[in-house]
Amino acid sequence: MAIALEGRPVARAILERAREELAEYVTQAGHPPELATVLAGDDASAAAYVRAIHRTFDRVGIPVRDVTLPGDVAESELRDAVERLNADPAVSGIIILHPLPRHLPAGIASQLVDPAKDVDGVTPYSAGRLAVGLPALPPSTPEGGMAILEHYGIEIAGSHAVVIGRSPVVGLPMALMLIAADATVTVCHSRTPDLPAMTRQADILVAAAGRPGLVRPEMVKPGATVIDFGVSFVDGRMVGDVEPAVGEVAGALTPVPGGTGAVTNAILVQNTLRAAWAALGGRRAG
Amino acid sequence: MAIALEGRPVARAILERAREELAEYVTQAGHPPELATVLAGDDASAAAYVRAIHRTFDRVGIPVRDVTLPGDVAESELRDAVERLNADPAVSGIIILHPLPRHLPAGIASQLVDPAKDVDGVTPYSAGRLAVGLPALPPSTPEGGMAILEHYGIEIAGSHAVVIGRSPVVGLPMALMLIAADATVTVCHSRTPDLPAMTRQADILVAAAGRPGLVRPEMVKPGATVIDFGVSFVDGRMVGDVEPAVGEVAGALTPVPGGTGAVTNAILVQNTLRAAWAALGGRRAG
Repeated sequence: MAIALEGRPVARAILERAREELAEYVTQAGHPPELATVLAGDDASAAAYVRAIHRTFDRVGIPVRDVTLPGDVAESELRDAVERLNADPAVSGIIILHPLPRHLPAGIASQLVDPAKDVDGVTPYSAGRLAVGLPALPPSTPEGGMAILEHYGIEIAGSHAVVIGRSPVVGLPMALMLIAADATVTVCHSRTPDLPAMTRQADILVAAAGRPGLVRPEMVKPGATVIDFGVSFVDGRMVGDVEPAVGEVAGALTPVPGGTGAVTNAILVQNTLRAAWAALGGRRAG
Repeated sequence: MAIALEGRPVARAILERAREELAEYVTQAGHPPELATVLAGDDASAAAYVRAIHRTFDRVGIPVRDVTLPGDVAESELRDAVERLNADPAVSGIIILHPLPRHLPAGIASQLVDPAKDVDGVTPYSAGRLAVGLPALPPSTPEGGMAILEHYGIEIAGSHAVVIGRSPVVGLPMALMLIAADATVTVCHSRTPDLPAMTRQADILVAAAGRPGLVRPEMVKPGATVIDFGVSFVDGRMVGDVEPAVGEVAGALTPVPGGTGAVTNAILVQNTLRAAWAALGGRRAG
């Protein structure tokens, strides 16, 4: 039976380090950094995510400022609101919640946030620094996956990692981080003709397709480490991309829920501190 | 025997289209765009590259302005020179030649050029737009590789492409472009334990390691397409990463010289026009 790669102990360890770092930061800066959330409209899952961010940041003692905008907010109003946060020296990090109301242009969120405050790594600038191997604030979800691998001592260098999914917020940045960590990496997606032939080669298999039950036991090399980023709801129950029976073949597997999702907000805390240090003069940045 | 994927016909076709587009551009803008080259010091290969750029741009009729700086140029002087070009509306594209003198900080070139004039796709912003799937000016060398695949009608979608090399100017952007074109892509590098096991799976094999003779015939699937970005000099002769004997196994192979290298400058012309159109109001950009 596969080891369960629980996310909570990973999040706990990240938040523990963040508390120490925060104390150090406050000594130097005189005040804690602050995260700003921007929520437009009344999407229930976005609102729930804001509450979850508050719970995590409260555990460390970093204040969170919520900016809420009406569902019919004009693009120019959203832009002004984010630009005020960009210009506010008290704000170290900004996260714009998704989904945004449909009348706003697709991808607009990634173009508004100052890259120096982009704690969720959504701007092209952040993606580019990651792609060219410069220090960057990567997207929180795949960075959480990397944190799980490191926390549980899974060897990345020299391994063959297979990533299913090529989204700019999960699959692609995860692939780039694995390459930077010396894995040989294969990126598969909906146009891959023989997915099992690829996944069976994986020492580390990363599922980020958002398709429940996509990864079945016969697609997994015995003993492999499986990281499941999938979040879907089937009959009101949260499920990942990986069938539970994969646990009988894999060596280690992130549960859903309680795996990768449990680490994302802790990474947001870590990235907010990184951004704050960098703004202070780079003493702890990178 | 493999088909030779000659670069010259590809470059010719790109320059032919560029000539037509230039005429259209001049009608609208009233003047041609201009490329600026920035050369610091007296590196012979960099100077030769500037001459090659002039020859290619002359064929289309796009003027090239050379900015030459002494080998002991201060960082601030280089910065000022590039910023003048960034601010000059007559200049549509800027390329900073490598190698820069050693006293300048590594990677500085990629941080000076305005992304809107980054016709060689070296800025993190360009890399990021490429990584997140937005219209971008990609690095000219891998974009030339993609142009060769398209020119010769090599099917990319649904293929398995294996890229050897993870440099931010060739290997990684080539991998991202192949993923965007619906290939399943494996990125290998110096830390890949069993390179032949990976390369033998490739329908499209891309060598961008800069190691002469790295790819031998027994590492290639019969009938595969092989793109060789390697440029090394052995006994004064230019050689790629791929042994010539691979031509007896592969279905198609770029020669060295005369393969990928012959396309790069034509791509620079194409990207200069793209940047010029975008600056004019986006009528032909993307």
